[in-house]
Amino acid sequence: MGDFPGHALAGSFFFIMGLWWSTKSILMHVCKKQKRACFLGSKALFHRSEILEGMVIVGMVLTGIVCLQSAATSKEGQWVRILRWHHLTIYLFYGLCGVVNILCFTITSLPVSLTKLMLSNAFFADAFTLYNHTHGREMVDIFVHQLLTFATILAGLVAFIEFLTRSKVTLVLLRSSLIMLQGSWLWQAGFVLYAPTGGPAWDLEDHSNIMLLSLCFCWHYAFICIIIGVIYAVVTWLVKWRLKRLSPSEVELLKNDEREQESEEEV
Amino acid sequence: MGDFPGHALAGSFFFIMGLWWSTKSILMHVCKKQKRACFLGSKALFHRSEILEGMVIVGMVLTGIVCLQSAATSKEGQWVRILRWHHLTIYLFYGLCGVVNILCFTITSLPVSLTKLMLSNAFFADAFTLYNHTHGREMVDIFVHQLLTFATILAGLVAFIEFLTRSKVTLVLLRSSLIMLQGSWLWQAGFVLYAPTGGPAWDLEDHSNIMLLSLCFCWHYAFICIIIGVIYAVVTWLVKWRLKRLSPSEVELLKNDEREQESEEEV
Amino acid sequence: MGDFPGHALAGSFFFIMGLWWSTKSILMHVCKKQKRACFLGSKALFHRSEILEGMVIVGMVLTGIVCLQSAATSKEGQWVRILRWHHLTIYLFYGLCGVVNILCFTITSLPVSLTKLMLSNAFFADAFTLYNHTHGREMVDIFVHQLLTFATILAGLVAFIEFLTRSKVTLVLLRSSLIMLQGSWLWQAGFVLYAPTGGPAWDLEDHSNIMLLSLCFCWHYAFICIIIGVIYAVVTWLVKWRLKRLSPSEVELLKNDEREQESEEEV
Amino acid sequence: MGDFPGHALAGSFFFIMGLWWSTKSILMHVCKKQKRACFLGSKALFHRSEILEGMVIVGMVLTGIVCLQSAATSKEGQWVRILRWHHLTIYLFYGLCGVVNILCFTITSLPVSLTKLMLSNAFFADAFTLYNHTHGREMVDIFVHQLLTFATILAGLVAFIEFLTRSKVTLVLLRSSLIMLQGSWLWQAGFVLYAPTGGPAWDLEDHSNIMLLSLCFCWHYAFICIIIGVIYAVVTWLVKWRLKRLSPSEVELLKNDEREQESEEEV
Repeated sequence: MGDFPGHALAGSFFFIMGLWWSTKSILMHVCKKQKRACFLGSKALFHRSEILEGMVIVGMVLTGIVCLQSAATSKEGQWVRILRWHHLTIYLFYGLCGVVNILCFTITSLPVSLTKLMLSNAFFADAFTLYNHTHGREMVDIFVHQLLTFATILAGLVAFIEFLTRSKVTLVLLRSSLIMLQGSWLWQAGFVLYAPTGGPAWDLEDHSNIMLLSLCFCWHYAFICIIIGVIYAVVTWLVKWRLKRLSPSEVELLKNDEREQESEEEV
Repeated sequence: MGDFPGHALAGSFFFIMGLWWSTKSILMHVCKKQKRACFLGSKALFHRSEILEGMVIVGMVLTGIVCLQSAATSKEGQWVRILRWHHLTIYLFYGLCGVVNILCFTITSLPVSLTKLMLSNAFFADAFTLYNHTHGREMVDIFVHQLLTFATILAGLVAFIEFLTRSKVTLVLLRSSLIMLQGSWLWQAGFVLYAPTGGPAWDLEDHSNIMLLSLCFCWHYAFICIIIGVIYAVVTWLVKWRLKRLSPSEVELLKNDEREQESEEEV
Repeated sequence: MGDFPGHALAGSFFFIMGLWWSTKSILMHVCKKQKRACFLGSKALFHRSEILEGMVIVGMVLTGIVCLQSAATSKEGQWVRILRWHHLTIYLFYGLCGVVNILCFTITSLPVSLTKLMLSNAFFADAFTLYNHTHGREMVDIFVHQLLTFATILAGLVAFIEFLTRSKVTLVLLRSSLIMLQGSWLWQAGFVLYAPTGGPAWDLEDHSNIMLLSLCFCWHYAFICIIIGVIYAVVTWLVKWRLKRLSPSEVELLKNDEREQESEEEV
Repeated sequence: MGDFPGHALAGSFFFIMGLWWSTKSILMHVCKKQKRACFLGSKALFHRSEILEGMVIVGMVLTGIVCLQSAATSKEGQWVRILRWHHLTIYLFYGLCGVVNILCFTITSLPVSLTKLMLSNAFFADAFTLYNHTHGREMVDIFVHQLLTFATILAGLVAFIEFLTRSKVTLVLLRSSLIMLQGSWLWQAGFVLYAPTGGPAWDLEDHSNIMLLSLCFCWHYAFICIIIGVIYAVVTWLVKWRLKRLSPSEVELLKNDEREQESEEEV
């Protein structure tokens, strides 16, 4: 992972997951608010999507590990090997989280809150490893990793709060935004540390670069907030548009369906 | 913002908002306690005031940004430009918070707790930027900014607790007091760093100044506590005085009005 | 306060308050558990005791301030004057807390949770001042103050948790134990820094003294836990003994009394 | 304790307790979920097991103290004596916790949450002592102790959250896993610092060892997560297997038994 593609791959994984989680939670929230005919959000569908999520996470982790191992050479020193193992460990914990996700939604006796606990565990293990990852590096390099650690700890804390309390849509959005921040910051880190465009690399000892990067970090987050706002608007519009296209009788049917489902659940 | 008027302007904005929020929450609390004829606190009025609040915040942010940009010169170095962008970023997040405030109270499907989340986001982004704002400055300058960061983080934490739990009047007062502390401390920072009165500037390398400033910080907060106490006394007295001036029949009418409103809401 | 009597006075104040709060909360808990004839805990009595508490706190603060000011000399340098003002500020916040205690239990419209908020405010202001109190001192001196700051922050956090959630007896005991720790540690600080017994003073630059003091801190807390345990045993025994001495008819009367009170409150 | 056997003994104690607590909580959770015939989890049995737990903890603490004292020699310097007292203090707080455990489940008037409070107290006192334990040692030695402190603080925080909220099985598992982490890390610390296998000792000044140890820490935790998963699978299988072996009539009897118990409790 000590190169641009490695950072970009991991960053894309985080960004996609954040995007998906925010879209899903907005969709569920809007459907609930409309209350009429939550055809998109039938419980079975969401249940299946949770299992799929777990599988996607495990798939991403395996892809990451394979890419990481294929980049290994036999000539690398002890230092580089430890760094690679750091990255492997991070992937391992996200993998554990994905496996627990699959298990929790297939085995009914497992408490569902375990998924949130393993997610926060994965974030904290990630943050812990990143924190101990930058011994002896240059100032700006360390700062970039510190900001990543910071975003990861925050995501872990929010996941832990979700684990303790019952989930609110705003908390899920907050967590998704922080995961997207991790993703976009991994891309930024790739650009800062490896300059893939071939342009001049950043001066890793310049104090003004630190102040510029703290600025970038804020702007990343502001953009992510705006992206989530746009997703909210689009999803609301889509749900309303599909509801409008359904003939009233269909809506009526859907409502009855739902009522039956609910009464079944109550039994 | 690197001058006295900039600090004073931002400080006034914070102080006014803190003053307004504390007054509003005290007013709502007193009206609720009196229970008789909450004529000041009709829900529609408070709802409209929330939208107005959002507009005022956006207006303040725009004023701040305009003042900031008009102070820019083409001769400024890279360092000064980054510092100005730091201030712009802080304004941007408060602006986002104001926009979300307006949206949450006009679009009913949005969860109201989002306003508190964006407020705490704005405080944390503010604190984060301030923390990374003082590279290479003098000791007392750094300390003044650290205290400001400290107050901002506390305000953000309280806003986050408000977001997680249901709002209590005491929590709102605590947040307001911390916002007023930010405001008054920005004025103090202006006086310490730019000495606008023309008197001798503070020695920015003197350790005893740090101890004096930590003292000032506590006294600022003590005064703000007393100000809030005075507001409480005045508001209570005003509400009682207005209730007394109303003829009993009017009070009766108001009561009936309220009951009707309440029963409507229950439907 | 920069001498042994000052530390001992403040320490006694803290220790007495901690002792009183733990005794009161244990008494209330035991009475509730016995459920029969809570003659000691009639609500009016506890209400009055809260007001009395506020007055005692204000009295303690005034005593402390008078002692502090009488120790002031006109020859003291700027540094010493700032240190004295630090101590005055700490007293001021505890005084505010006492005043709010009195107000909250005399004016019914004020929320009772305000007392807990002001208490945690006082602890945090205390901790903040102590933290900025030791610039340029010797290592062991700083460490002793850091431990005091640590105990104060913990007490403030527990008071804040009490403010957020509804009070449990175990939380009150935890807070009381931390306040007693502050008190006993102030005595310890007096002995370490001023050696009033005339024996050889502690070497303030010796690392092994730091390790010894961290040990002392733990032992202080262990002893306080045992003291609270003993109080619990004594209070339980006393309540049972008084209940036994009452003739059955009296107990019956008390029960009826209580029922009437409760039904009155419900109305 | 400044040798390999001391670390191994304490580590085993922690690991066994973590293993026991996780097994017990999984057993209770699975029995509850099966709902049929919770023959293993009759309340009286669990009650008695809590008292036994307290006794086992006190027994472990006494064993630890005896081993510690028997290793003391009259020739040891002041420094070594303070270090031994540090270890004694840690044992003392766990002993207090065990005693409170016994008392809380024999004296009914004591609040049960007190056990969790004393447990978190013990962890925090442990962490505090460990934090002040490593003055003047070598880098890797300090880092190993810091990681132990970190795990201890986390365990204390989780115990404190359990004390504040009502216990969930996932929280208990989280705490157990952190206690097992402490235990296994004490073994690791023994191997790193004393090399009992006779092989070459670790270089305590090498930066890459720090990065390797942070890796080990994560892997320890990952293995513990997997161990808990295996325990979960085994316990579920065992409970189902014993239920199957019971003849249907017995199950019926157990069910009736339970119903009676429950109705008794409700009375």
